[in-house]
Amino acid sequence: MDISTVAGLILGIVFMIYGIFLSGDLSAYWDVPSVVITLGGTLASTLASFPLDDFTNTLKVLKKAFVYKDTSPDEVIKEIIRLANVARKEGLLALDEYAETLEDQFLKKGIMLIVDGTEPELVRNILETELVYIEDRHANGQRVFETAANFAPAFGMLGTLIGLINMLRTLDDPSSVGPSMSVALVTTFYGSVLSNLVFLPLAQKLRERNGREILVKELMVEGLLSIQAGENPRIIEEKLKTFIPPKMRKNYREELEKEGA
Amino acid sequence: MDISTVAGLILGIVFMIYGIFLSGDLSAYWDVPSVVITLGGTLASTLASFPLDDFTNTLKVLKKAFVYKDTSPDEVIKEIIRLANVARKEGLLALDEYAETLEDQFLKKGIMLIVDGTEPELVRNILETELVYIEDRHANGQRVFETAANFAPAFGMLGTLIGLINMLRTLDDPSSVGPSMSVALVTTFYGSVLSNLVFLPLAQKLRERNGREILVKELMVEGLLSIQAGENPRIIEEKLKTFIPPKMRKNYREELEKEGA
Amino acid sequence: MDISTVAGLILGIVFMIYGIFLSGDLSAYWDVPSVVITLGGTLASTLASFPLDDFTNTLKVLKKAFVYKDTSPDEVIKEIIRLANVARKEGLLALDEYAETLEDQFLKKGIMLIVDGTEPELVRNILETELVYIEDRHANGQRVFETAANFAPAFGMLGTLIGLINMLRTLDDPSSVGPSMSVALVTTFYGSVLSNLVFLPLAQKLRERNGREILVKELMVEGLLSIQAGENPRIIEEKLKTFIPPKMRKNYREELEKEGA
Amino acid sequence: MDISTVAGLILGIVFMIYGIFLSGDLSAYWDVPSVVITLGGTLASTLASFPLDDFTNTLKVLKKAFVYKDTSPDEVIKEIIRLANVARKEGLLALDEYAETLEDQFLKKGIMLIVDGTEPELVRNILETELVYIEDRHANGQRVFETAANFAPAFGMLGTLIGLINMLRTLDDPSSVGPSMSVALVTTFYGSVLSNLVFLPLAQKLRERNGREILVKELMVEGLLSIQAGENPRIIEEKLKTFIPPKMRKNYREELEKEGA
Amino acid sequence: MDISTVAGLILGIVFMIYGIFLSGDLSAYWDVPSVVITLGGTLASTLASFPLDDFTNTLKVLKKAFVYKDTSPDEVIKEIIRLANVARKEGLLALDEYAETLEDQFLKKGIMLIVDGTEPELVRNILETELVYIEDRHANGQRVFETAANFAPAFGMLGTLIGLINMLRTLDDPSSVGPSMSVALVTTFYGSVLSNLVFLPLAQKLRERNGREILVKELMVEGLLSIQAGENPRIIEEKLKTFIPPKMRKNYREELEKEGA
Repeated sequence: MDISTVAGLILGIVFMIYGIFLSGDLSAYWDVPSVVITLGGTLASTLASFPLDDFTNTLKVLKKAFVYKDTSPDEVIKEIIRLANVARKEGLLALDEYAETLEDQFLKKGIMLIVDGTEPELVRNILETELVYIEDRHANGQRVFETAANFAPAFGMLGTLIGLINMLRTLDDPSSVGPSMSVALVTTFYGSVLSNLVFLPLAQKLRERNGREILVKELMVEGLLSIQAGENPRIIEEKLKTFIPPKMRKNYREELEKEGA
Repeated sequence: MDISTVAGLILGIVFMIYGIFLSGDLSAYWDVPSVVITLGGTLASTLASFPLDDFTNTLKVLKKAFVYKDTSPDEVIKEIIRLANVARKEGLLALDEYAETLEDQFLKKGIMLIVDGTEPELVRNILETELVYIEDRHANGQRVFETAANFAPAFGMLGTLIGLINMLRTLDDPSSVGPSMSVALVTTFYGSVLSNLVFLPLAQKLRERNGREILVKELMVEGLLSIQAGENPRIIEEKLKTFIPPKMRKNYREELEKEGA
Repeated sequence: MDISTVAGLILGIVFMIYGIFLSGDLSAYWDVPSVVITLGGTLASTLASFPLDDFTNTLKVLKKAFVYKDTSPDEVIKEIIRLANVARKEGLLALDEYAETLEDQFLKKGIMLIVDGTEPELVRNILETELVYIEDRHANGQRVFETAANFAPAFGMLGTLIGLINMLRTLDDPSSVGPSMSVALVTTFYGSVLSNLVFLPLAQKLRERNGREILVKELMVEGLLSIQAGENPRIIEEKLKTFIPPKMRKNYREELEKEGA
Repeated sequence: MDISTVAGLILGIVFMIYGIFLSGDLSAYWDVPSVVITLGGTLASTLASFPLDDFTNTLKVLKKAFVYKDTSPDEVIKEIIRLANVARKEGLLALDEYAETLEDQFLKKGIMLIVDGTEPELVRNILETELVYIEDRHANGQRVFETAANFAPAFGMLGTLIGLINMLRTLDDPSSVGPSMSVALVTTFYGSVLSNLVFLPLAQKLRERNGREILVKELMVEGLLSIQAGENPRIIEEKLKTFIPPKMRKNYREELEKEGA
Repeated sequence: MDISTVAGLILGIVFMIYGIFLSGDLSAYWDVPSVVITLGGTLASTLASFPLDDFTNTLKVLKKAFVYKDTSPDEVIKEIIRLANVARKEGLLALDEYAETLEDQFLKKGIMLIVDGTEPELVRNILETELVYIEDRHANGQRVFETAANFAPAFGMLGTLIGLINMLRTLDDPSSVGPSMSVALVTTFYGSVLSNLVFLPLAQKLRERNGREILVKELMVEGLLSIQAGENPRIIEEKLKTFIPPKMRKNYREELEKEGA
């Protein structure tokens, strides 16, 4: 589970509720029509902005911001060095059997290409094209949230505008001005909360997650090509370590030896 | 038909009307002069921003946001593998006859170039140049909507400013202040609705549609060049699959065999 | 003449005047000091932002947004195929005489380079460098208008701020508040009109015009290099057609034959 | 220590306190609930925007904005020329011993690669990949501060909105309007101070620091590759000097000779 | 001297003073605490945003916006053709003596490299690296002004916020509301003037100046490499002319002949 998404969202809501309780009461902030205008309008315009399948896919993408099994680059480097060792000792074909046990589909595919004897140039071409389009599809999910984050405050203000226009037309009782404006402002509040507490953090979280996923995949491409080129595991380790921060770097080959791999 | 555009626009309008009905009545939101200032001003400035033909072309482009026959990348991959099979068995020249039956003009053109014996370098050059300029022309349509989306709120506020200036000059009767400001705010409402409910979603929808169209065309270029190079249909399938998400991928050659192609 | 610039500007002004007449009178919007603060301030800051010659050049550039003889890419393709035919039949040197009749200086220069026997690599180098710096200089004109478009609302608000500060200091007579604020808001109105009705559309129009001019010049470079390489007019036609939308494409060689060229 | 960060922050706070004291008193600006809403909300949304480790890493990164030992490019050039001299006189292997004494890990790693006899192409590849990912990780820290800088004013306004909604609902006592609004505005004040006095300057400072660090590392890569290529120290000096401003350039080889290196 | 900077700044100030005098008096706009909050806060945050030496360097950079000896590309072309003539007639070594008389350090350095017999690839490498880092350093100065331009309105509003909070807390005497708000708004006025009349124009002017300087230096690199390659002065002239607008182009070789060079 992605603790920071859950903790951040809950904390944000708690802080808002705390702020409301201090001088008012929550009931004033629960107004169905305001929800309809702000959330409804935001969803409607976001829906109109994207093809239907991109819009519905967003729910699946959303899961990533909450439940996320981080593929540690650390583990991937170790995995690739293990593969490089196998390839060195038993030949590229021996990777076939080994690939069966791999969980990561991208790495698996890369090994299959190598085992099939695909030319290095083509392997790079295929894996990098795949990377480009993975990034492309990921960007889709982010764009939906960013678009919603832009629409939410706009519809919040539209709701307030509607409230103001209605109120100003019938300005008979001055004592009703305050409460009416109070109600009108609730939609602005909704729009701002939706945008700043929900959509913007989710869009940013997806961007960060995708950035990490791409980094791991770039690491895999580099490693796979090195394995195919029959490079020395020591050199491969040196190359792959450059992808991660110095503090995370370990002596992977040594670790693998201890594990008896 | 593009359901999400239509549904999004209708839902957005419904939500706004619902919001208005709750505390006011629709008649207050129908004000011809306000329409003239906001919509008129927006169109005038957008017109001045573009060459006449780009502006008038926008109506045709607009159609794409509503009626859109999505060329599925799935189908295109199958088509290209079918073509690769033909080329393998009967030679490149056999594609000539086959090309007649193709609907897509871009794919057709590519095959014609191959059949004519054009050099691979030149085929890539021609198809990619075409792609660049297709993207360029598509961007035109989006820009018109984006420009309109920026002008709409500006003219909405200009209308409100005019209303305020007029009202403030003759501040005799305090009881008329409210209704006058109510009227003045209607243009801001118009500007915001035009921008957030119409122009911005349409601009974004066009951008998304074009992104997909370009992806399909990039897939065609890659496929056509592979066919010309006489690559193995299995390799071609592997290459083209990288353009689409893993879940959409099928075993295209098997499918084709079943269909007896 | 560029109809859309003129029509857009006139329509925009008409709509604004119509909006003003509805509830007020134009005289309230004619205020010399407000013009001085808003327009004067905008021009002063724009002047300070650019070297003097860039600023004065803007007037010449401005002409382009109004009077513009569009070089149709259609005509240019035809011209280049005509040149290719000449080169094929009578040799590259025959182009010399032909070049005399050309209006376009860029095309003329390119032919001169070819006739002089300049190496292809150098021809491309020279023409593309020229293109880069043409784009550069064009961008200058746009930047001046964009800068002015950003300053205008800022100075409009500065004017209103000055009006407000003066008014609030001497708040003796409540009945004068309204008219004073009305006057103060006029500068905001000016700033917004200047930006949205004048500077932004002109900046955008120049950007669009320049985009088209560059496209035509890119087409010329491609064509000139193909002529120099002695390529087949049929191939040249095929290549150049990719620069323009399918609907605009014609059978240029056939047309030329009919014209007896 | 980075004097400008500390001085800038202290001066900013002093100026704000001075401004407050002139017409009010500080106590009005110390409001725990406002701190909770603004700072709490900002931190919560920033937390939700990033993976947990990126968020916690920020504290370490923050240190860089305050305590920073600038690696002078000047010193690095000298160091590299010294290394080049050693390599020239005693051979590349002699660098091994020398490298032990180096503080900079990046430079050390580069020399180790050279001493190990790694191919130049691979050395460049490894060092440049490392550079790309260092920049990547640095950008992380900046993004956290930028994100916080965007959220702070938003939550400041949300707090004010909550205050306004609460106040307007119970508009019994007109004399309480002023003080209530005063309290409501304090959150906007907090949000703006947090963003403009803390988060934005820190984000910018980190960006500048990282820019300098990358420049020094690029200089090292260039120098290391030149050493490996066995280039003349005079040429190396000439090349490396181009990275720094003319006024900072010295005659490094002469200096080294004087030092007897 | 850069007339447009000076004229723009003076005109802007004159227009603002004129606007103030019309309905108020200047004394209301001179408020030391407001200056401290707005200008002080802006400088403090800008200081915290940059390393100390970048901040102090800004004063030197600032000079460029006022006093600027424009190196005319026209003159540089002529100079380079003169050099090419010398190199052609008397050999590359003859440039050594000639270089002594050159004022421009960049051109001088380039010639020294050529005279020293540096390989063309390395000359290009050195000069282009130098160009990249010159641009880099120039961007520094612009960034400082842009950062200040962003902070100024923010601190202006902070000052107004402080004024409002103080005023609203002690709302005893309604007649003091106007003057108090008037004073509070003065900081907003300061912030806007600082940003729009000073920082933004200076940042833009520096950007334009640097753009021109880089263009001239690119021209020099191109020319120097052509001289080293022993290209024909006629070709060099043709190449270099592409950097400048057609109207500025002259027959440089003819001019030089008349001058007897």
